[in-house]
Amino acid sequence: MHDAIIIGAGPAGITAAIYCARNKLKTLVLSENIGGQAALSGAVENYSGYQMVSGAELAKKFHDHLDEFPEVEHDDSPGEVQRVSRAKNGFSVETAAKKYSAKTVIVCSGAKPRELGVKGEKAFRNKGVSYCAACDAPVFKNKSVAVIGGGNSAMDAALQVVKHAKKVLILTVNPELAGDALLKQKIEANKRISVIANAKATAISGKKFVDALKYSANGKEKTLAVQGVFVEIGWTPATEFVGLVEKNKWNEIKVNLACETSVPGVFAAGDCTDVPEKQIIVAAGMGAVAALSAIKYLSRK
Amino acid sequence: MHDAIIIGAGPAGITAAIYCARNKLKTLVLSENIGGQAALSGAVENYSGYQMVSGAELAKKFHDHLDEFPEVEHDDSPGEVQRVSRAKNGFSVETAAKKYSAKTVIVCSGAKPRELGVKGEKAFRNKGVSYCAACDAPVFKNKSVAVIGGGNSAMDAALQVVKHAKKVLILTVNPELAGDALLKQKIEANKRISVIANAKATAISGKKFVDALKYSANGKEKTLAVQGVFVEIGWTPATEFVGLVEKNKWNEIKVNLACETSVPGVFAAGDCTDVPEKQIIVAAGMGAVAALSAIKYLSRK
Repeated sequence: MHDAIIIGAGPAGITAAIYCARNKLKTLVLSENIGGQAALSGAVENYSGYQMVSGAELAKKFHDHLDEFPEVEHDDSPGEVQRVSRAKNGFSVETAAKKYSAKTVIVCSGAKPRELGVKGEKAFRNKGVSYCAACDAPVFKNKSVAVIGGGNSAMDAALQVVKHAKKVLILTVNPELAGDALLKQKIEANKRISVIANAKATAISGKKFVDALKYSANGKEKTLAVQGVFVEIGWTPATEFVGLVEKNKWNEIKVNLACETSVPGVFAAGDCTDVPEKQIIVAAGMGAVAALSAIKYLSRK
Repeated sequence: MHDAIIIGAGPAGITAAIYCARNKLKTLVLSENIGGQAALSGAVENYSGYQMVSGAELAKKFHDHLDEFPEVEHDDSPGEVQRVSRAKNGFSVETAAKKYSAKTVIVCSGAKPRELGVKGEKAFRNKGVSYCAACDAPVFKNKSVAVIGGGNSAMDAALQVVKHAKKVLILTVNPELAGDALLKQKIEANKRISVIANAKATAISGKKFVDALKYSANGKEKTLAVQGVFVEIGWTPATEFVGLVEKNKWNEIKVNLACETSVPGVFAAGDCTDVPEKQIIVAAGMGAVAALSAIKYLSRK
């Protein structure tokens, strides 16, 4: 039986593992890759202490840091984690191939930004296509940029991007934007932001970087000359397998400031939780909190 | 009028400043130093991505990172911040010398571990004297270590340290330990932990590193041969100047997962809040959340 099973090895999972290992917990990490979504990032300029590092480099540094603790077990071919459930003296974690048991579980399974599923989207990721305005807005100084989405996230993104970009076009499949009235007012008041309603993105194209976005509106196919496309249509947290804890309506695991879930002994950190910001440094900080909470939980058990 | 005034420039404040600057907020940082408590740390081994870095080096990296944004104003001789209060369209922040105004305030003023106030304590800081078991416990492998304090923090620390140390002595000024019953049971059950009651530490001594702790008990002066002293008698958050937000009984500012305080427009991050863990990576993550929450608040204002 492990003291802690950590599901996921993005910034939250790695940081949790480092803290668990330093506290001599018998720790198992279940994850096919190291780095999570962070590893897919282009340039990371907002991880404090690193002025400029690629997502892959940062993931490598996390990996090296974890390698300092060879006592941490790592099952790197668990297949999908199927289920976390209560068991005698703790919890059982079932993967496609195995069944593990542990006194505590730290869920750091992350979330994926929802994709448009259009041609060119994958090919131009980090080459004009972004899922994080807070991260990438400054890259689009004086450019024309499309933001795709019709809710608060899209509006927040547009207002962040327009501080750098020359022009921002918001494309929504709905007849109008939906969300906070004050945000809508700000969007309407900004002459450099336009809204294209009833518009469905259909393809992203370019040479090395994005230079055009195709969309259909009212049965017609149109093309926008843009150098950036921010996709802001929500996140899909990887939390189906953990049915025993409370989640919010977006299936994010509800946690408190101590990263405790509704079930004592199960902790969660990072993008899979209801923390409002999906950021590397935020996930790392939560991973530390979750591990320290697990350590305290074990001390009191 | 500034968009955001950030009070403090430890890991939380620096990270908040980086996020504010990247979002083009007109930002002012009030802080006499850069790095906060982090700069006073010896070796930092649990900041994800850095396997081993000194507190001073990490503070330098934070400083360099902030220097990438020369548009961030920095008043580095504000004296003590005297007061944060409501003002027209936002808040006013008074220092000994000046009065600033801003639409949002991000409080990252940190906390100091309470000190014993005994001879040798300052001289041996990071040379055997520590205020953070989660950070420094692994350094004391096979050593004899004293933990000073009589509550849950001291017991948690003792249980962390004993995983590495040969022997742990808990010194409390009270007749017995006070706190969670289960923790007390664990302490009592561990043969390598002893409790010395009614004991008041009086001096720490050594050559290069700590080698002894003096204490008085029942009117007698005694000496323990220990190589480490963990001081676990609480924290003093620097929050007197911000009277308008809700705090807990330890004067920590109450925040939610979005780092919002009880007053819209005032955010807080890091050690000055009621987050249960005082850790560099945790403070940095919260600084990011607080800044992004301030950005959203401004978008809706």
